[in-house]
Amino acid sequence: MGIDPGSAVTGFGVVERDGSVLRHVAHGTLRLPRAVPLAERLGVLLSGLGGALDAHRPDVVVVERVFVARSAGAALVLGQARGVALASAAARALPVHEYSAAQIKQAVVGHGAAAKPQVQAMVKALLGLPRAPASDAADALAAAICHAHIGGRLGALLAAAGGRPAHPRARAGHGGGRGFVLRRAR
Amino acid sequence: MGIDPGSAVTGFGVVERDGSVLRHVAHGTLRLPRAVPLAERLGVLLSGLGGALDAHRPDVVVVERVFVARSAGAALVLGQARGVALASAAARALPVHEYSAAQIKQAVVGHGAAAKPQVQAMVKALLGLPRAPASDAADALAAAICHAHIGGRLGALLAAAGGRPAHPRARAGHGGGRGFVLRRAR
Repeated sequence: MGIDPGSAVTGFGVVERDGSVLRHVAHGTLRLPRAVPLAERLGVLLSGLGGALDAHRPDVVVVERVFVARSAGAALVLGQARGVALASAAARALPVHEYSAAQIKQAVVGHGAAAKPQVQAMVKALLGLPRAPASDAADALAAAICHAHIGGRLGALLAAAGGRPAHPRARAGHGGGRGFVLRRAR
Repeated sequence: MGIDPGSAVTGFGVVERDGSVLRHVAHGTLRLPRAVPLAERLGVLLSGLGGALDAHRPDVVVVERVFVARSAGAALVLGQARGVALASAAARALPVHEYSAAQIKQAVVGHGAAAKPQVQAMVKALLGLPRAPASDAADALAAAICHAHIGGRLGALLAAAGGRPAHPRARAGHGGGRGFVLRRAR
């Protein structure tokens, strides 16, 4: 599960990797109304993400690594939502992986400076979705795809090094490209 | 319960106000080892604060309002711990009150620019503690004292305005000063 935490909207997206096959499972956004006091919003985020984690029981949580923020104020606000997201994963003993925005865009779009609409369009195409997910959910799915991609390539490397691939499909994986076959969402 | 969230150490402190009497209940610190990954640290913070909240079942949680941080990086790190603290209170449907550092120091030391050792010394004196609490726990207790003080004065004002005081002791409250009588910790 990828999570894209934000003070107003938090996106999440779940993908499943079966050998070299990547499949869309679910995505969504948690909207936190600004009229509600901060602590309550964060409480809603904690229970909302907890609900999504308990419903989908992912093996791994993936979030974007944050290097800079526009300002200290923006960083504080983002940090509060991010802390809740990380803690909700850790409370379920889930490993959390972080990738830079550039790594995520590279994995999904093919270059590290892609704009948001490009990420949305590529997530739609890669997962065979009927329409592009909302920006925050697309970013969350992109983070999950990035991790699956890197995991898929690691698996292929291990297989090439003589290890038994975890799944027969990994043996038939493409030599180049993203290292997984894409399937339409169920 | 006052909470002073931090990325390395989070302090908490519980006081009980019975009319105009303020009593120390408990305080402590949650230390989050730097060697542990961020998400795990925040998970430990979430469960540690959850444990303290469930053990003491406070009516209210009090945190320092944050206006500025040294840098965007520091703000992000503080925000992550702060988000966990606020969400852990909200998850228990507890109201969260925020006061500025100046308000808290004013309530405890008598002026808004007090240094940390002064806060520690005054918290020790006000609550009749055998020794000064560690800085983070002292700040948490100071936040709780600040709220109790303002609540106590509100109660006195309501009583003076013709309302029945919530507790007979409130009637005998000091005209000036902090508005509550201090009792030694049990």
